[in-house]
Amino acid sequence: MDFTGNHIISVSQFDRPAADRVFEVADGMQPYAMRKRITRVLQGAILSNMFFEPSTRTRVSFGSAFNLLGGEVRETTEVKASSLAKGESLYDTARVLSGYSDVIVMRHPEAGSVAEFAKASRVPVINGGDGDNEHPSQALLDLYTMRMEIAAQGRSLDGMSIALIGDLRFGRAVHSLCRLLCLYSNIRLHLISPPELSLPDEELDVLRTAGHKVESFQDLSAGIQDVDILYVTRTQEERFPSQQQADRYRGLFRLNQSIYTQNCAPNTVIMHPLPRDSRAQAQELDEDLNQNPNLAIFRQTDNGVLIRMALFALVLDIVEDIDNHSRPVTWFTAKRHLPV
Amino acid sequence: MDFTGNHIISVSQFDRPAADRVFEVADGMQPYAMRKRITRVLQGAILSNMFFEPSTRTRVSFGSAFNLLGGEVRETTEVKASSLAKGESLYDTARVLSGYSDVIVMRHPEAGSVAEFAKASRVPVINGGDGDNEHPSQALLDLYTMRMEIAAQGRSLDGMSIALIGDLRFGRAVHSLCRLLCLYSNIRLHLISPPELSLPDEELDVLRTAGHKVESFQDLSAGIQDVDILYVTRTQEERFPSQQQADRYRGLFRLNQSIYTQNCAPNTVIMHPLPRDSRAQAQELDEDLNQNPNLAIFRQTDNGVLIRMALFALVLDIVEDIDNHSRPVTWFTAKRHLPV
Amino acid sequence: MDFTGNHIISVSQFDRPAADRVFEVADGMQPYAMRKRITRVLQGAILSNMFFEPSTRTRVSFGSAFNLLGGEVRETTEVKASSLAKGESLYDTARVLSGYSDVIVMRHPEAGSVAEFAKASRVPVINGGDGDNEHPSQALLDLYTMRMEIAAQGRSLDGMSIALIGDLRFGRAVHSLCRLLCLYSNIRLHLISPPELSLPDEELDVLRTAGHKVESFQDLSAGIQDVDILYVTRTQEERFPSQQQADRYRGLFRLNQSIYTQNCAPNTVIMHPLPRDSRAQAQELDEDLNQNPNLAIFRQTDNGVLIRMALFALVLDIVEDIDNHSRPVTWFTAKRHLPV
Repeated sequence: MDFTGNHIISVSQFDRPAADRVFEVADGMQPYAMRKRITRVLQGAILSNMFFEPSTRTRVSFGSAFNLLGGEVRETTEVKASSLAKGESLYDTARVLSGYSDVIVMRHPEAGSVAEFAKASRVPVINGGDGDNEHPSQALLDLYTMRMEIAAQGRSLDGMSIALIGDLRFGRAVHSLCRLLCLYSNIRLHLISPPELSLPDEELDVLRTAGHKVESFQDLSAGIQDVDILYVTRTQEERFPSQQQADRYRGLFRLNQSIYTQNCAPNTVIMHPLPRDSRAQAQELDEDLNQNPNLAIFRQTDNGVLIRMALFALVLDIVEDIDNHSRPVTWFTAKRHLPV
Repeated sequence: MDFTGNHIISVSQFDRPAADRVFEVADGMQPYAMRKRITRVLQGAILSNMFFEPSTRTRVSFGSAFNLLGGEVRETTEVKASSLAKGESLYDTARVLSGYSDVIVMRHPEAGSVAEFAKASRVPVINGGDGDNEHPSQALLDLYTMRMEIAAQGRSLDGMSIALIGDLRFGRAVHSLCRLLCLYSNIRLHLISPPELSLPDEELDVLRTAGHKVESFQDLSAGIQDVDILYVTRTQEERFPSQQQADRYRGLFRLNQSIYTQNCAPNTVIMHPLPRDSRAQAQELDEDLNQNPNLAIFRQTDNGVLIRMALFALVLDIVEDIDNHSRPVTWFTAKRHLPV
Repeated sequence: MDFTGNHIISVSQFDRPAADRVFEVADGMQPYAMRKRITRVLQGAILSNMFFEPSTRTRVSFGSAFNLLGGEVRETTEVKASSLAKGESLYDTARVLSGYSDVIVMRHPEAGSVAEFAKASRVPVINGGDGDNEHPSQALLDLYTMRMEIAAQGRSLDGMSIALIGDLRFGRAVHSLCRLLCLYSNIRLHLISPPELSLPDEELDVLRTAGHKVESFQDLSAGIQDVDILYVTRTQEERFPSQQQADRYRGLFRLNQSIYTQNCAPNTVIMHPLPRDSRAQAQELDEDLNQNPNLAIFRQTDNGVLIRMALFALVLDIVEDIDNHSRPVTWFTAKRHLPV
């Protein structure tokens, strides 16, 4: 895969060397993301950060990643603030906006919309999430986090075991992650969900074709035993036909410290694509886990910045230049990875 | 006209030398807008980009133009996010905000509001559109585009012919353009619109006083013959008293490739202030023209960045300094003017 | 008080040396805020400007202050655009966002929310206003303005006299100001308000314990006599249980030029935390005072930039570095403090 000048729309664009390349470049971003050094390599470059669906986390993460490389960010949020409301096509919006920037990140509520937009864009487009379809940077940061957490235990992604927990039907993060896991070998997966929210057959087939061993569970305690990583997800309530239907699944699986202690090996990694639902009835990941050192959810979001910096650097072809435009940080910097 | 430190509120501020000066400075912005070079001339300067009415295109275009000169952008969108909602006067808002920035761009739904705001501002204000009144940077970029497109055919603005098509009554872009056209000599205009949406008498008088030849048409095919430039506009539905009344004009004039081929010389330029209305019933400019090399609508929006850079550079008096603070771009840059 | 790396949540954190230190650093920001020089000391640093309640003035003021120090700003406005809407806790939002930035400014409609957020943040948090609770940078800029205006008359804060006028019950700016005034000695206060909107007992006690002399008035003319500073506030209508109840107090106290001339010494300073309510029925500070040279309300907002620059500089520990990264401004700069 050649990154330079290309769009990042789907995880299906990535083969193993491409994923490894992203991770290697992300590793090199650590000094900048940790505020040890700053780089000005993209000084004068403009990111158009287009969010036609709310997402504070992803939006700010992409924006900060671009700023950390020295570039500027022009931002658009919400459909109603845009000429799409006046009947403009995605084609026109893409032709126009790509004249204003060097690279575009786009989130949009409709599946396929970002790919359609990218076709008309004159600059590289990165998919920031298109409806229930894809969210490739999330899948990359999830896999990168698994790689780092497992590496800290002296092991590698090949051969590891993961429990996917919660709404496996509507969670696009889970689907994109499954696709990426197929680049690795010999993975064991525990799928833990209510039957109605189980992983779609398409993703199941993909995993099995890759030679991974997949087992389904409807009981949380049984499913989380004997795996390296727990990947918990919230119920994607906004994707359900009605709130009433969504409510039926709220709070069905709740991981807390006591269940963790009873069933998991003491170094089992806990992940979540966030946001986790902290309302009293939901809490798929209890806050009593906040002091658990294996709770990797905030290392996960920190890694998102590294991954997004890496994608910008690769697409704009400035990987080799980054360190040449760098110098030490001189202001107060907090420790980034505080023990929670 | 002296630009330094002055407001840009109306096209009526421009005489021919002033317009020519803007175009000359805009020409010099090409290397920066095309991402051949970057300049840092406005490093440390702040634009306050105030949009009290949605407009992705104009807002991002002004913001990117300021970033391309090296400046920072602080942005405000929507009335409800502002203290205007708490009963604050435009006078107070202007006094306060002009203490936070070096230059202000303002769009506001009420005609005359930007001029009122500018009176109280302590820094230069550029009108980004005030209701159905004025949008001077749009008129300047339209005229600049006509000048470039016609120059590519070895001719100049004086003596050219233009068909203005669509809603000539509510389209402020058309009105401001008519005023600017009076700075040139011997122009022939075809006005093509339903009788109820025809150009107001005031603009007609202005054109005739300037010695231009004006002819009205209610038939698209007849009107677009024998002109150099077609300037198509959408129906400004939001300016109509009711949606029902607006609907009567939707789709009344539709330019497509077949009508173009049958009636126009093969190098007739097609322009549109955008957004064009791509809903099935509207389509005043059919997407089957997207492959037509004379479709200048995206060169038009690209030129908007040049014009806005030029206005900032003139108002802040840094034209002579731009190249001194410049260096080559080192990241991947797409071709800007791809054949559509 | 040690500023480096610490949160600024409440005025109660400040003792007299801390307030004096902020004012001293703010004085040093004058050349940058006045656009005589630019500094790049925070180049590469990122402010996360989080506004979960609308506030153009405070938001842009903080953002511009950070830009003037050379840093970048990533902004979030409104609750609905955030994952708080998906049930995310303030704890999670804080953990995540503090991985994206070097410092966070947060405004939130709920009292106490910013303190709660700060507890989980890994980077310093500055309170931009939490409901009816605190707005420390407003109190600091108010006090800084009093100090400057009084200093111009050759006097100091100790021993001065202030009339607080209007809604003293719901105005958090007034409450925070009262707390800060206790750092100074021998102040005389006139409290002018309808009985139902009088200063809460808690604040009264604080003032009296500090040894200040407090007198209450229900008549504007009587209360504004024989004081150095008039601090006028609007009725905080949005804090009332109903609009109907708020309406009863609209326009109850109106300061205008004629009342001022009849009752005040000619150099009596007029302040207001803004926005002032300019609707016909309100006008607690009449626009006929706009030409009065003692109207300090726009010097007040200008000073807000100085104070916020100082807070950033202190918290990020770069005060001594600012001038080393500076150079003269080369673009057109308007006079900042024009006579109104």
